[in-house]
Amino acid sequence: MGNTNNDGGVFTVSADLLYRQITEVFARWGMSAAHAATAARIMVETDLAGIDSHGVGMLPHYQRGFAEGRLDPRAEPAILRDTPAAALIDSRHGIGHVAAEAAMSLAIRKAREGSIGIVAVTGSNHYGAAGWYARMAAEQGCVGLSLTNAPTPFLVPVFGTERALGTNPIGFAAPGADPRRPVLLDMATTTVAYGKVAIARRAGKPLPPGWAIAADGGPETNAAVAAEARALAPLGGDRVHGGHKGYGLALMVEILCATLTGARPGDETGHFFLAIDPGFFRDTQAFEADLEALAARMRANRPSDPAQPVLVPGDPEHDAVHRRRRTGIPLLPALVEEIRAVCSESGAPFLLEDG
Amino acid sequence: MGNTNNDGGVFTVSADLLYRQITEVFARWGMSAAHAATAARIMVETDLAGIDSHGVGMLPHYQRGFAEGRLDPRAEPAILRDTPAAALIDSRHGIGHVAAEAAMSLAIRKAREGSIGIVAVTGSNHYGAAGWYARMAAEQGCVGLSLTNAPTPFLVPVFGTERALGTNPIGFAAPGADPRRPVLLDMATTTVAYGKVAIARRAGKPLPPGWAIAADGGPETNAAVAAEARALAPLGGDRVHGGHKGYGLALMVEILCATLTGARPGDETGHFFLAIDPGFFRDTQAFEADLEALAARMRANRPSDPAQPVLVPGDPEHDAVHRRRRTGIPLLPALVEEIRAVCSESGAPFLLEDG
Repeated sequence: MGNTNNDGGVFTVSADLLYRQITEVFARWGMSAAHAATAARIMVETDLAGIDSHGVGMLPHYQRGFAEGRLDPRAEPAILRDTPAAALIDSRHGIGHVAAEAAMSLAIRKAREGSIGIVAVTGSNHYGAAGWYARMAAEQGCVGLSLTNAPTPFLVPVFGTERALGTNPIGFAAPGADPRRPVLLDMATTTVAYGKVAIARRAGKPLPPGWAIAADGGPETNAAVAAEARALAPLGGDRVHGGHKGYGLALMVEILCATLTGARPGDETGHFFLAIDPGFFRDTQAFEADLEALAARMRANRPSDPAQPVLVPGDPEHDAVHRRRRTGIPLLPALVEEIRAVCSESGAPFLLEDG
Repeated sequence: MGNTNNDGGVFTVSADLLYRQITEVFARWGMSAAHAATAARIMVETDLAGIDSHGVGMLPHYQRGFAEGRLDPRAEPAILRDTPAAALIDSRHGIGHVAAEAAMSLAIRKAREGSIGIVAVTGSNHYGAAGWYARMAAEQGCVGLSLTNAPTPFLVPVFGTERALGTNPIGFAAPGADPRRPVLLDMATTTVAYGKVAIARRAGKPLPPGWAIAADGGPETNAAVAAEARALAPLGGDRVHGGHKGYGLALMVEILCATLTGARPGDETGHFFLAIDPGFFRDTQAFEADLEALAARMRANRPSDPAQPVLVPGDPEHDAVHRRRRTGIPLLPALVEEIRAVCSESGAPFLLEDG
């Protein structure tokens, strides 16, 4: 661990080194060691799971939030309201991971003590990947739901032309016999995340209709134009293909995360967490066995292409973790340079030198 | 009220007469007056809201369930487990509406008393439109979520070829200043419900790709073939267009409604209801005002076509209720004949004669 290498222009870095790099930056911002450890661990595990868009790739964004005063690294989350089954936490403009981890922990505790727990968070910032917190519940034997709004508008409502909602993701997890391998759904409510548009632009490829929206409200298939406009279609695309459903789901997430918690639209981020102890509803082992049977039924579905079996949500992430723990986390050269700039701005040592 | 007329081959019937017709049938099955009133009211209000596929149009299906012993009209739902925040109800194979209405009522009571309530239902049958129960929460000032699995398989998982899950819908509602006009999402997790395929077949029109799945797992655009195969694509369609998200959402609904409650796969139906009192999280009026502002922001989005403004989920249903309360509920001649057959089988008087 601790070595980096340069493989075909892509650095690969060990999880351990990446963790140390992130905590060095957070320490320079004045974040407590405990909070830095929480946020860095979540970011690194997100990179291990192959969700490159939501791990260390977000560090430059967080640096801007810190520089512009939107992200307060010294903030201590505060519980504003608390009942046996529900709570509201104020992130106080801290990094989202810290308040979110505290919130899902509390929701899980409430579920274990009284069957279910809902904890919402207001006044927060980007919390990484929605699925991470849902997985957290599953690893402790609970069914978990994790939602967040996102103040940056991307989604254009069906029939509209203007960006109006964030990519407002849904994370959901349920534990089977192996709590380290839950059914795990982690999805933006847009057809694709913005990163996929940026990748198509770099590759010089056109976009499929249903990904991005043109200025007139129709589909935008020019990746360069779409990457500039940053206007994404809701899951489904247009009205004919069910785009009103993706738009409706994004609105549901907005209501549960922002309207319900009072997070200011277009500025603050809110999160919503639900944990359910399946043992309240039925025998835990029977639940886990039925979940495994359900997943096995999906995987046994005759595939269209024998080389590509039917997956269960979470399979790709699980495989990525296994692979990347061995091979390291690949970082694009552009991202390494961005991390170098973050280190320079914050006064942290740059640890990701080519080995 | 009470008159029917024949307008261009389509009967229109008053809500009152339709209600009496349905309760006459239920009474002949041996359903109690209270349960018949509950189920018939929900069915008629669903027809009033324009959701023709889930109101009286389901009566022939319920008749088959009764005849085949899957639906017990005399069943009394029983609370199996109960805590301050959560409960599990056994529908005992009664009609879904009765257990579902009881379950959401209990969830709302728990929310009012302690901030949130989750009530799941096992051993049930078709409960009509998912959105109806979410709306019920909104009309009482709560945010509501209503999910149900469906034992009849329609949805083909991404990369697969075989039907594996029901259309597993999501209903969500949140109350604004006017609790009779909530934001109301009611969506199947397939791109379209089966009814849309049947309509295209009757019209002799091809299907857009993304609606139905062919035997080889690719898109099926022949409506006649698709109507016969009954294999639907998840919301999003194929992998490129986000179909793995619709599939993941259907699986989430399956887990919460069937795996969590122990409803037998492919046979029994389970439901999942969540009610949240927004007054626990923040001032109720501030929540309602922010919800109205959010809806207004969506409606003010510059439309692609000036003749088709951006809608908020629930707008079409709200407009349909206003219109149909005046003009009556239209019934296709084929459905009128099916209802006549149900009356004949059950011994109920047929009340929908051409006036």
